[in-house]
Amino acid sequence: MLGEFEFIDWIRRQVKCSIPVGIGDDCAVLPDGTLLTIDAIVEGVHFARGTGWYDVGWKACACNLSDIAAMGGRACYVVAVTALRADMTGEEAQEIVRGILAAAGMFGCELVGGDVVASEVVTVTIAAIGKLDSRPILRSGATDGDAILVTGALGGSLLGKHLRFVPRLAEARWLKDRGVHAMVDVSDGLLSDLGHILRESQLGGATLFEDRIPISPDAERMAGSDGRSPLEHALNDGEDFELLFTTAKEAAGEIVKENPFETPITIIGEVGGRGLRLRRSDGRLEHLDAHGYDHFRKS
Amino acid sequence: MLGEFEFIDWIRRQVKCSIPVGIGDDCAVLPDGTLLTIDAIVEGVHFARGTGWYDVGWKACACNLSDIAAMGGRACYVVAVTALRADMTGEEAQEIVRGILAAAGMFGCELVGGDVVASEVVTVTIAAIGKLDSRPILRSGATDGDAILVTGALGGSLLGKHLRFVPRLAEARWLKDRGVHAMVDVSDGLLSDLGHILRESQLGGATLFEDRIPISPDAERMAGSDGRSPLEHALNDGEDFELLFTTAKEAAGEIVKENPFETPITIIGEVGGRGLRLRRSDGRLEHLDAHGYDHFRKS
Repeated sequence: MLGEFEFIDWIRRQVKCSIPVGIGDDCAVLPDGTLLTIDAIVEGVHFARGTGWYDVGWKACACNLSDIAAMGGRACYVVAVTALRADMTGEEAQEIVRGILAAAGMFGCELVGGDVVASEVVTVTIAAIGKLDSRPILRSGATDGDAILVTGALGGSLLGKHLRFVPRLAEARWLKDRGVHAMVDVSDGLLSDLGHILRESQLGGATLFEDRIPISPDAERMAGSDGRSPLEHALNDGEDFELLFTTAKEAAGEIVKENPFETPITIIGEVGGRGLRLRRSDGRLEHLDAHGYDHFRKS
Repeated sequence: MLGEFEFIDWIRRQVKCSIPVGIGDDCAVLPDGTLLTIDAIVEGVHFARGTGWYDVGWKACACNLSDIAAMGGRACYVVAVTALRADMTGEEAQEIVRGILAAAGMFGCELVGGDVVASEVVTVTIAAIGKLDSRPILRSGATDGDAILVTGALGGSLLGKHLRFVPRLAEARWLKDRGVHAMVDVSDGLLSDLGHILRESQLGGATLFEDRIPISPDAERMAGSDGRSPLEHALNDGEDFELLFTTAKEAAGEIVKENPFETPITIIGEVGGRGLRLRRSDGRLEHLDAHGYDHFRKS
């Protein structure tokens, strides 16, 4: 079987795209500035059997809104397909919808359609429409010498954050007004998503600063039980749904200083050089391999 | 468990909708005239295991385009999530995408994004964006006394048509220019979809003419083996993806006469009275029960 990213690359090569941004960013950008994205979450892959149904609905909706955030857009409408097992109760199905509505409602976004189908595996697929007030922030906008920044703290999302995160829509729009160069949401993992930015921007490398990576308490907790370090979790775990972005160095300092949100914003590295490198606290440079979370290989 | 339609009704009651057309028609209609719809097809429910993968991709895309047709719109963009089993080959996955691209390409519609996920059950979910040149044709536009018409022939789609149908986009736009009142695509079955039109139009009933229902050769073939009549198949089988519509009686005759398409268009009944009735060839009126295909109850 092909890997997730190889397959998406193959699809991209099949498609002649007439629109401003097609396959390969967090959303498609249509000629009138409409953003369009779609994402599915599958029982046993993106959530464990036994997860609360409200959380399943929330996650399915919020990960689409996170894609709209990553472009710097406003979320407007969602449509949803819920694929339900025959042994589920009506109340369970309703809980999924309540979760979807809560996540959408938090951002003034409306559920405007969809379908309900039967399946042996619960799957919630949502497509979202957003709007841009000005140009989108693309993965391809990074420049050599840019600072690399991230919102929030990373790693260990499996302990709960991957289900009940708040998409960074407000933060993203503020960052767009500050002219940030490139942005992505951290869904595959920090190194993997940074790799997306570098590749789309046709840049050869970046250096991350070990002592600046914001490590979440959940990464520490997971490290305590699985023998991997908290840093490894922060670098590689997926589904934090934070914003990873680059901008000019001078602008980066101001963004951190003027950040009006509760969500921290941290400078974690810089674009440049060849390959992904980690600058250790003692100044040594180490080569890093991106081995983020490939949803496709997981099952 | 709730039935498909009860569940959708419940969802509809949870949602305060600000847009021209929300849940309950073939597509949502956004304030700028954009049409938005989403549909999933699931292995073992909407296609049998062993179905050609190209056909799976075609169907997943075409059933969304059919929803856009039912509103009288042009299909513009699709995004797709393919949920693939781990035992599938890359070539099989690519065949699904080729089917999607072929169906979209036939109507000048572009694949602009999506995702690939792992699942134990192959599921292809597509969201489509369309545009309206003028007002949409809604399910709710039927009037007492309207003629009821249908494109093509009905019944027995399980023998193959449900996979490789051609969405009636061109026919629908021509019909829109003729001012038809209400339209839906026949996905749940003729009686069931006629029920949707009557309910949304707040009308009490309709009469279908036995000797006018266009019965497909596949309905005859299925009848030969399962003991149900060809007419029963034509009335109740789902997934013909033909257009079912109503219009003023005078206009109906002209539509049939001036139909420029290879696809036949037939007057099959009239709106009025209480309940769904069938006028037999000998003039007798019989009461009909809608027991169309409820995808949700099937598994």
